[in-house]
Amino acid sequence: MHAIGVDIGGTKIAAGVVDEDGTILAQTRRATEPDDAASIDRAVADVYAELSQSYEVQAIGVAAAGFVNSERSTVLFAPNIAWRDYPLRDRVRALLDDDVRIVVENDANAAGWAEFRFGAGRAVDDMLMLTVGTGLGGALIVGGKLVRGAWGVAAEVGHMRVVPGGHYCGCGHEGCWEQYASGSALVRDAQAAIVVDAERGATLLALAGGDAQDLTGPQVTQAAQDGDPLAVDLLAQLGRWIGEGAASVAALLDPALVVIGGGVGAAGDLLLDPARHAFADQLSARGHRPEAKIMLASMGNEAGIVGAADLARI
Amino acid sequence: MHAIGVDIGGTKIAAGVVDEDGTILAQTRRATEPDDAASIDRAVADVYAELSQSYEVQAIGVAAAGFVNSERSTVLFAPNIAWRDYPLRDRVRALLDDDVRIVVENDANAAGWAEFRFGAGRAVDDMLMLTVGTGLGGALIVGGKLVRGAWGVAAEVGHMRVVPGGHYCGCGHEGCWEQYASGSALVRDAQAAIVVDAERGATLLALAGGDAQDLTGPQVTQAAQDGDPLAVDLLAQLGRWIGEGAASVAALLDPALVVIGGGVGAAGDLLLDPARHAFADQLSARGHRPEAKIMLASMGNEAGIVGAADLARI
Amino acid sequence: MHAIGVDIGGTKIAAGVVDEDGTILAQTRRATEPDDAASIDRAVADVYAELSQSYEVQAIGVAAAGFVNSERSTVLFAPNIAWRDYPLRDRVRALLDDDVRIVVENDANAAGWAEFRFGAGRAVDDMLMLTVGTGLGGALIVGGKLVRGAWGVAAEVGHMRVVPGGHYCGCGHEGCWEQYASGSALVRDAQAAIVVDAERGATLLALAGGDAQDLTGPQVTQAAQDGDPLAVDLLAQLGRWIGEGAASVAALLDPALVVIGGGVGAAGDLLLDPARHAFADQLSARGHRPEAKIMLASMGNEAGIVGAADLARI
Amino acid sequence: MHAIGVDIGGTKIAAGVVDEDGTILAQTRRATEPDDAASIDRAVADVYAELSQSYEVQAIGVAAAGFVNSERSTVLFAPNIAWRDYPLRDRVRALLDDDVRIVVENDANAAGWAEFRFGAGRAVDDMLMLTVGTGLGGALIVGGKLVRGAWGVAAEVGHMRVVPGGHYCGCGHEGCWEQYASGSALVRDAQAAIVVDAERGATLLALAGGDAQDLTGPQVTQAAQDGDPLAVDLLAQLGRWIGEGAASVAALLDPALVVIGGGVGAAGDLLLDPARHAFADQLSARGHRPEAKIMLASMGNEAGIVGAADLARI
Repeated sequence: MHAIGVDIGGTKIAAGVVDEDGTILAQTRRATEPDDAASIDRAVADVYAELSQSYEVQAIGVAAAGFVNSERSTVLFAPNIAWRDYPLRDRVRALLDDDVRIVVENDANAAGWAEFRFGAGRAVDDMLMLTVGTGLGGALIVGGKLVRGAWGVAAEVGHMRVVPGGHYCGCGHEGCWEQYASGSALVRDAQAAIVVDAERGATLLALAGGDAQDLTGPQVTQAAQDGDPLAVDLLAQLGRWIGEGAASVAALLDPALVVIGGGVGAAGDLLLDPARHAFADQLSARGHRPEAKIMLASMGNEAGIVGAADLARI
Repeated sequence: MHAIGVDIGGTKIAAGVVDEDGTILAQTRRATEPDDAASIDRAVADVYAELSQSYEVQAIGVAAAGFVNSERSTVLFAPNIAWRDYPLRDRVRALLDDDVRIVVENDANAAGWAEFRFGAGRAVDDMLMLTVGTGLGGALIVGGKLVRGAWGVAAEVGHMRVVPGGHYCGCGHEGCWEQYASGSALVRDAQAAIVVDAERGATLLALAGGDAQDLTGPQVTQAAQDGDPLAVDLLAQLGRWIGEGAASVAALLDPALVVIGGGVGAAGDLLLDPARHAFADQLSARGHRPEAKIMLASMGNEAGIVGAADLARI
Repeated sequence: MHAIGVDIGGTKIAAGVVDEDGTILAQTRRATEPDDAASIDRAVADVYAELSQSYEVQAIGVAAAGFVNSERSTVLFAPNIAWRDYPLRDRVRALLDDDVRIVVENDANAAGWAEFRFGAGRAVDDMLMLTVGTGLGGALIVGGKLVRGAWGVAAEVGHMRVVPGGHYCGCGHEGCWEQYASGSALVRDAQAAIVVDAERGATLLALAGGDAQDLTGPQVTQAAQDGDPLAVDLLAQLGRWIGEGAASVAALLDPALVVIGGGVGAAGDLLLDPARHAFADQLSARGHRPEAKIMLASMGNEAGIVGAADLARI
Repeated sequence: MHAIGVDIGGTKIAAGVVDEDGTILAQTRRATEPDDAASIDRAVADVYAELSQSYEVQAIGVAAAGFVNSERSTVLFAPNIAWRDYPLRDRVRALLDDDVRIVVENDANAAGWAEFRFGAGRAVDDMLMLTVGTGLGGALIVGGKLVRGAWGVAAEVGHMRVVPGGHYCGCGHEGCWEQYASGSALVRDAQAAIVVDAERGATLLALAGGDAQDLTGPQVTQAAQDGDPLAVDLLAQLGRWIGEGAASVAALLDPALVVIGGGVGAAGDLLLDPARHAFADQLSARGHRPEAKIMLASMGNEAGIVGAADLARI
């Protein structure tokens, strides 16, 4: 059975027809306006109209960054789109002529589900997905099922507290994991290191064109791959925070696998080796179970489309 | 359908016939020897023989403090009993004449399941159980199912790290939640407070008979209920650590309910109010979902028997 | 003997003739340009010319925000003025006709010295001065002498680390005391609290005119004095960080007195009581010595002038 | 001018005649009884009688582990000897026939002073002495003078808090520096590491004779020198805590030198290199001053005698 997955970004949506093996058979895109929720409704209806001409489609999964209620119909809150308690499912439905099943999902959940079903996690039943990008998002698979929580707000992994009195987070709290294990944290730590030791930070500063405020995560990764000692240390520190936090999650959920997605994955073993060591070092009951593997995500940018489509079938 | 639940303690086992509503129809006990695993096997077989004379029993659930494999047959490790990779299920079976279903469960999981099915959590699908005793144990219910993890070692909630570089834990790590949110932590903090300020600690010291090493958790609770300011503060601090840690779990699992079991529950609102405030203060996405309730467990000491029996039916 | 004290701010200098009792006999001011170091040299020479017409002056003390070398002649670095290894003493001298003694001092040291000699600390020999403003500055008096350190950079109290992995500091490190015990910290914590709980933060948000970014420290203090529970809590938290950090300083230096200066002093006991409790709670060897007092500074904004003048006499 | 230095230990006292260059001209010892304060008084009088037969002595300095009042006459509290507000100076004087000057000093202060006057610190005016033994003691030299504090209890460096909510300390507080930077911390961390990873800890466990409770600091040092990776890591971690804490002290006092004494010094660069790196990494105002050196103490076990004698002359 085919389903359409729609990945809603800030200024565009990407959609694809996905078969039961997770293969994308056809794709399309539309530009959207984040401040105009109706433009997004129309775009979703539009891609459905287009894609359903050539394929028989029995469900639409819509993935978006935001809190989705447990009925998978309403976006409670979205950080980058004008959705506040927005009944996205019903608004889209009202624009369609047929009664195709429509399901709304959090985008990190969709991507994690894709990895679980068709990617790095297809061999396991219990998995922690971490999407290490600007922030730290994620998804939890427990016993083969996606964890949505009582109110649809589970898997806000980035807001587990890892340091009491630690870094301020945009959520209003201190010490959230994403302030230590994200691309933003990597860049901030790099900028701080340049302040502390200009000589040691010279390579990174040069890569940033002379202004540390312009430094990017990929530049840090590039510098590390070129052997810059500071950049290597910064990625190792990021890896350690990923691994140590994952060990806390493992104390709760005992996953068989931790999948790392997001841009920092480009750093490869410069990130993963420290993450694995830190995870093993901090893992409780270490001698009494196998250690969960830590692997990179394998589904790429289309994980959101694939996961949303697949979740719509359930 | 009736099932027998067996709760294995250090020096005795308690067993009961439990019906499908969680009611215990009959109970019995046996003394056991923790260093003699076979004595426990025989005691389990023995209580089954006794109880199955009067009741038709279709399953036995055996709850024990320790790591149980995901097949629910073998105790991987137990802190207080001589079990190391011990095939408890098969050893008991070998002593029985019939082929009644036998299931081994972690005792905290069993107690949490009883609360979920018949106690404080019977109205919810997603629940965090915390057993605050000498240590901090617990159980996780996600989507109506008990979380066991990939290797049966999930819900080791007490070993989520809450303070990097924090208190030493018997597990070899630092800063584990149970070093801040347990009866032992309460007593240690009380002892430390007596050292810091003898005047302020005078009431507690007197309750301990003049030697802080003899202080107990119930004494601290009693002093708090009698209005001793230090004891009130100590319970409030314990409550805050419970609440703050529970907020980290909520970031991951979004439970509808946190159930507090174990001896410290006797402190009632002296503990629960600070826990609730701290939970609310630390909860991420607070404005976008209802707040989980924090309630005391309602099943008492027989939760292990009831939960083990009920899990054996599944 | 009279001395002139000069307090160099970002855009103006204030100067006064100070007698040996710390009384300011005459004052004057000049506008200056922070990007033009020579304009400041000329202004200092100019106020000397003016004030020395009416008073016999034997020394000039110049106080400035920045690192001053241990010879008290050169500003190594200033955050807000274009001084980098700037020989301020010699530049001013070159503009003067006579050989009056000229001494350069860090402004926090000057203010602390004034409190020690003529203000809150005049009865003690060992004192910690904390200037809690935008940042956290201070001065240390040990055995009746100002602590300057081996390279003139002592008493950077705000950069003692109080939380490993804590808040980012402009200095490039994490967890510096000033990120927890300053007016900026107060405002940031208030802004965060508004994000966490809009209802609880409503009063502060209203005081800020509806935009938390516009909130100021004095608004928080005002709200606390009017009884707003959140504001009271925020000042108490600030006070606790002041007291706990001061206890660490006391472990090192065993001062008889901690003097709190800077704008937050306006909060009075709303700040001081929590500071005193936290200090006592965290003080080591508490039963074996009197507890240092914690008092507000008494010299006001002219402490810099008075202290600089007095230090120039030594 | 000659002075006698007396170093009072738990079960014996060691005394020597010291000249103005810090050279010990003659030595003697007496056994003492820690529970019998009078036995110590007599032993001090006795060594004075013996040593003053051959040397003209003008002062006696008595060094002891404990809090000494600022008049340098009374031991306020001693952890290992039966002194509580004990007027040691006057008790000894009452046993003597002449009116030789007698001064009581804290033993860590005495040892630090010896390093400052005659040892590693003889070229500087501002110095931090750290004695890393069972606990973490120290001495502070500011502007060429020993810091005693308002009540004689300064330089309790081990009780500066470095981790809020950190390890319990015998003083009743949490997170004291000495719980991270001492020989005891080294051993506890080693024991914890053995629990976490038995394979990695095998060498240390073997050195301890198979029982981690018997492990000693010198065994960890020996293992590190023999290349055991865990032991090397443990010493590096100890070194980092020393360096990071010293950076906090440097923010306050800007010393030119940090001197490391105590048993862990045997680890040499395995300890010092990580300490130096961590100190440099955490040092505030790093680009604006030279970095303090970190060196081993050079005076050996007789530092207490030499320092006590020299301080008695002041």
